[in-house]
Amino acid sequence: MSGNSIGKLFTVTTFGESHGLALGAIIDGCPPGIEISEQDLQLDLDRRKPGTSRYTTQRREADVVKILSGVFEGKTTGTSIGLLIENTDQRSKDYGKIKDRFRPMHADYTYQQKYGTRDYRGGGRSSARETAMRVAAGAVAKKYLQVCCGIEVRGYLSQLGPIGISDVDWSVVETNPFFCPDASKVSEMEEYMQKLRKSGDSVGAKLTVVATGMPVGLGEPVFDRLDADIAHALMGINAVKGVEIGAGFDCVDALGSTHRDEMTPEGFTSNNAGGVLGGISSGQDLIAHLALKPTSSIVLPGKSVDMEGKAVEVITTGRHDPCVGIRAVPIAEAMVAIVLMDHLLRNRAQNADVHSTTPVIPAATS
Amino acid sequence: MSGNSIGKLFTVTTFGESHGLALGAIIDGCPPGIEISEQDLQLDLDRRKPGTSRYTTQRREADVVKILSGVFEGKTTGTSIGLLIENTDQRSKDYGKIKDRFRPMHADYTYQQKYGTRDYRGGGRSSARETAMRVAAGAVAKKYLQVCCGIEVRGYLSQLGPIGISDVDWSVVETNPFFCPDASKVSEMEEYMQKLRKSGDSVGAKLTVVATGMPVGLGEPVFDRLDADIAHALMGINAVKGVEIGAGFDCVDALGSTHRDEMTPEGFTSNNAGGVLGGISSGQDLIAHLALKPTSSIVLPGKSVDMEGKAVEVITTGRHDPCVGIRAVPIAEAMVAIVLMDHLLRNRAQNADVHSTTPVIPAATS
Amino acid sequence: MSGNSIGKLFTVTTFGESHGLALGAIIDGCPPGIEISEQDLQLDLDRRKPGTSRYTTQRREADVVKILSGVFEGKTTGTSIGLLIENTDQRSKDYGKIKDRFRPMHADYTYQQKYGTRDYRGGGRSSARETAMRVAAGAVAKKYLQVCCGIEVRGYLSQLGPIGISDVDWSVVETNPFFCPDASKVSEMEEYMQKLRKSGDSVGAKLTVVATGMPVGLGEPVFDRLDADIAHALMGINAVKGVEIGAGFDCVDALGSTHRDEMTPEGFTSNNAGGVLGGISSGQDLIAHLALKPTSSIVLPGKSVDMEGKAVEVITTGRHDPCVGIRAVPIAEAMVAIVLMDHLLRNRAQNADVHSTTPVIPAATS
Amino acid sequence: MSGNSIGKLFTVTTFGESHGLALGAIIDGCPPGIEISEQDLQLDLDRRKPGTSRYTTQRREADVVKILSGVFEGKTTGTSIGLLIENTDQRSKDYGKIKDRFRPMHADYTYQQKYGTRDYRGGGRSSARETAMRVAAGAVAKKYLQVCCGIEVRGYLSQLGPIGISDVDWSVVETNPFFCPDASKVSEMEEYMQKLRKSGDSVGAKLTVVATGMPVGLGEPVFDRLDADIAHALMGINAVKGVEIGAGFDCVDALGSTHRDEMTPEGFTSNNAGGVLGGISSGQDLIAHLALKPTSSIVLPGKSVDMEGKAVEVITTGRHDPCVGIRAVPIAEAMVAIVLMDHLLRNRAQNADVHSTTPVIPAATS
Repeated sequence: MSGNSIGKLFTVTTFGESHGLALGAIIDGCPPGIEISEQDLQLDLDRRKPGTSRYTTQRREADVVKILSGVFEGKTTGTSIGLLIENTDQRSKDYGKIKDRFRPMHADYTYQQKYGTRDYRGGGRSSARETAMRVAAGAVAKKYLQVCCGIEVRGYLSQLGPIGISDVDWSVVETNPFFCPDASKVSEMEEYMQKLRKSGDSVGAKLTVVATGMPVGLGEPVFDRLDADIAHALMGINAVKGVEIGAGFDCVDALGSTHRDEMTPEGFTSNNAGGVLGGISSGQDLIAHLALKPTSSIVLPGKSVDMEGKAVEVITTGRHDPCVGIRAVPIAEAMVAIVLMDHLLRNRAQNADVHSTTPVIPAATS
Repeated sequence: MSGNSIGKLFTVTTFGESHGLALGAIIDGCPPGIEISEQDLQLDLDRRKPGTSRYTTQRREADVVKILSGVFEGKTTGTSIGLLIENTDQRSKDYGKIKDRFRPMHADYTYQQKYGTRDYRGGGRSSARETAMRVAAGAVAKKYLQVCCGIEVRGYLSQLGPIGISDVDWSVVETNPFFCPDASKVSEMEEYMQKLRKSGDSVGAKLTVVATGMPVGLGEPVFDRLDADIAHALMGINAVKGVEIGAGFDCVDALGSTHRDEMTPEGFTSNNAGGVLGGISSGQDLIAHLALKPTSSIVLPGKSVDMEGKAVEVITTGRHDPCVGIRAVPIAEAMVAIVLMDHLLRNRAQNADVHSTTPVIPAATS
Repeated sequence: MSGNSIGKLFTVTTFGESHGLALGAIIDGCPPGIEISEQDLQLDLDRRKPGTSRYTTQRREADVVKILSGVFEGKTTGTSIGLLIENTDQRSKDYGKIKDRFRPMHADYTYQQKYGTRDYRGGGRSSARETAMRVAAGAVAKKYLQVCCGIEVRGYLSQLGPIGISDVDWSVVETNPFFCPDASKVSEMEEYMQKLRKSGDSVGAKLTVVATGMPVGLGEPVFDRLDADIAHALMGINAVKGVEIGAGFDCVDALGSTHRDEMTPEGFTSNNAGGVLGGISSGQDLIAHLALKPTSSIVLPGKSVDMEGKAVEVITTGRHDPCVGIRAVPIAEAMVAIVLMDHLLRNRAQNADVHSTTPVIPAATS
Repeated sequence: MSGNSIGKLFTVTTFGESHGLALGAIIDGCPPGIEISEQDLQLDLDRRKPGTSRYTTQRREADVVKILSGVFEGKTTGTSIGLLIENTDQRSKDYGKIKDRFRPMHADYTYQQKYGTRDYRGGGRSSARETAMRVAAGAVAKKYLQVCCGIEVRGYLSQLGPIGISDVDWSVVETNPFFCPDASKVSEMEEYMQKLRKSGDSVGAKLTVVATGMPVGLGEPVFDRLDADIAHALMGINAVKGVEIGAGFDCVDALGSTHRDEMTPEGFTSNNAGGVLGGISSGQDLIAHLALKPTSSIVLPGKSVDMEGKAVEVITTGRHDPCVGIRAVPIAEAMVAIVLMDHLLRNRAQNADVHSTTPVIPAATS
């Protein structure tokens, strides 16, 4: 395929441009008999939806998803699931002026060069709008993982520009517009974002996704390791420039004697591995971090070129997120859930005879 | 497949355990007519080979590769290429003592739990020895990229434990046992490694891979982006815990106005993107960084459990690298080359009509 | 994936049940810059459409297809193409009575057993209605093959029950409701079908698909041979029980000396091979035949069992084709076109350096 | 991949030319814990081995297979299995004379045109010798299917040129050099083959493969149906020109009322479907037929052209099978076993929750 599918057994294929008629997805490989409703998908779509706070783009999209197939009398049938979201708010006039020029640090240039053409309206296929379908499909995976396996996939904002967090309180994450897990940082973030919006600039962010209730054994060495597939899925999100598993880059100057997670009859003594050993889940919590760059679509003028390579100045006046990282939390959760779902099925296929093995030690990190 | 293949069009499938009879690989999808010899592969295998310096494991492996098919009268025929390396140095006695216990932070535990069995000799399939075949296959990709497309894939050690680098001089990289590009740091690294070996401990490392001569247009949005596939390939190397493209995690606290790479008729003004925009190569140098954890196989005693979950102490007395990152440079180059080769063919398939497009601006970073 | 996708580079993924809200497809891997319109797809959809003659089911479906993405300003962009057909005529009452019993020789039984559930309305996913999206996607492939490569894919009915053909006149095929290429047989077929309809029975058929203007070199030995992938695509059409390439089963009692297609500077002396040698197209016309069984959905009572395995009698009173083979001609053309398109891209990827080779001898069969 | 792999979860990738150093295969996705030995593979390799009777090629190949990985202490470990057969009998002089000309009806021409080069020694990759690795890999699948699922895959010769069979007695199949299941036809076949050899000609054959002990539920609609994948696997064998499931082409002039397999509480009343309904196994015996053309490599002179397209006469004096169909029985069994194994794992992945369902009716055909 040419890149619009992810997953080998739980496969999600998507289509849709920012200002096209609709966005859609097909989920192939979802097991039968699972209760799934449009409402299950809508919950996560609303968490990602633009225009919900003054800290995100003001473009208004209802993002109402329809399930067109694969679900009968409220349950999955095992056949392919068709999903559709119709685009409602398409102010093309906002975008006409970038038809003949490339926004710096944007996919305009590479799409034009790769394909010899591009849908310039709102970035077309390269728009973050495309990720709505990832969230919808990921919600199906999240539902299955939770209901059938007790695996819960959740995420939070671990750094907003210069502002880090000191504490992770899951009960706080959904109570603020930043998915920030540290209540003591929310007002600081609000002030920062208001200054940023006034300045017309944008900023990067760091997110963390955690999967709890993990079984031992997910991941297929040597190339389709669980951590490798998660890196693929997260790096494939717009604006992501870095991915870490567990301790990530902190392991560079660490010593083996202190870095290794020791094992005891009561469980692991730490989780620097982030829940993956040799590419296979260890039963500990799966922990992944990702870095998102500041959006390049800002109102501050930038140097660029036009289709003929002549120097031009670009000012992006569209409705954009000053920090794309904020709305990416549900997207990152969705991608991790899709990967886990895929590996759950892959492991089940090959190791059905043994995959009920009870862990030798508890997953808990003491 | 269950994880032992990588690439969709340039596909590398491998087999082999650390102490089995042999390691092997099949390359499927290599274009015909390319001059390739065993010597081309041996060069990179020797760069990765253990026992070449006192800073790597003393296990001695000739690592002599044989081409068994797909090459006729010195050139590829377009049929599948079979590669084989016979194992010569298999001191199983070194490993017998870890048969019934799990080395902490090692794949022993997850392999045993996933498969209900494991080849415990030297880590079996989870041994870094498996990567020899990646290097052999990667050498074919490197040869094609260089000869047919002028793309060169090279790597270096950018940090050894606490020791970073101040300069990148490609002419220095192959002149020291660390693949260090900064001549002024080599002696410091030597002293550090000798102290480390005495202490019986291990340390992490950071590597950088750069591809020059990149065309515009490699990468298939939305899921199989070039950076996503590189993240998958690099995170799939043993001990890797983090991957960055371009500025990587430094983008988190960066502002869009300063972070974005502006475009001028003379080229880009910077390369924070690391050569990828919207998942497609921009023509700038491709830049990827990876973090490798310290090996968990050290002589310092560690807490662990045996097959029954009882507490045991583990001391790994085998022949191991105090810093697995050092020998990983050729492996990381190989993985990047395989991904580039795969995307070159994928782009050629879909965009043959347009892929000769000349870039609107020069790739050079001013 | 779980079976709802076909093609490795030109990939078609479909969804939709007979009585669901809609049918849909995503085409991934279509080259950019191709002029494509909904009308191009509608032409073939109308050829397959039910209710066009008294010899097909009287179910009336507008089968109006919408292109939702991947086409901008009339041309493909290289991004995934989303297709949608809304179901309009869903007389569920027709089907309620087979909710708890299995129609003999029908997928009801195997779907129920495989998935533990099924959408019993009109056969759900197993209904021939699913093939509408194959025709729509195939039309895109047919357009590209014809416009960009001069390859034309056409089919005809080569046998209707006991009635064979004596002549193939392409100009006749679209002038009768049977896609029969022999004008002298049409009235005979009409009489036969009227008697058949009165009797309440159904009958089988044999179809032939021919691709002209074939290049040399399509097909990837050893497993993904062109003929193997065509066999996969055609055997995957509902009711198909046999596939032949060229002389097919006639080769069983043939001698090598008479069966082999000899080569001369003017071309091949015959085409028993059906245009494929060693799994690779020879440049001769590609010729494939397929056998379709009589539909099992007939009004004549048949023995079957209910969900509890108790004996029941089944009479299918729905609106069904007395000969499903008739409407399958556009479907078979579509499947062959999809396979050719996929192999065209695969060949282009691997053999771009040589695939412009001019044939050593003309393709023409003297 | 470019065609040298088959299977999505139980994946077999092969390499090797007729006169290269060796043939090899990698099996990826074989479940762990299965007892497998080289002897298990050798049994089927010996059934396919040339030179075992005067009715097959006199080329002598030991065809001794080595298992290089994936099996530890006699059982599979779940990691990739490497297989190797070294070529011993390579009389290249036999083949030198066809270096610059194309054997009629042979892959020489299409390989040369597709790849711009070819290994002309004994047909290189297009030689039937390549199928040795299919048999070796298929033996692993056959072992698993039989031991773990009670599925047995067997084949026989159902027609040799003009000589059909009247009876199928499995106990006879392995007692004659033709895999003929009808003892009353063996001497007739012997006489026919001796006359054929004297005449220097070759002849076609028809084979039948049957899988007993089939579970209900194997096959993934809509494209990867069980029968579609079997058609792909069988049509992908050298010289195969036709594939049928169950009644096959006999369904063309059949009536639905007599052709359909009715269902009763005691089982099905017939098996015209060949064990597949809607692309999913019904539990009845799986029945597939395949047609193999007469080999084109015969000593009788044939018209052809050389590399420059000039007319030449070709006489193939190498050691060839007068009827390639005979030795193809173990190959066809292997391909069916590989497909069943793959679908067993695919079904297990998606339907683990329900795939233990007991059939509503017995599989037996009354």
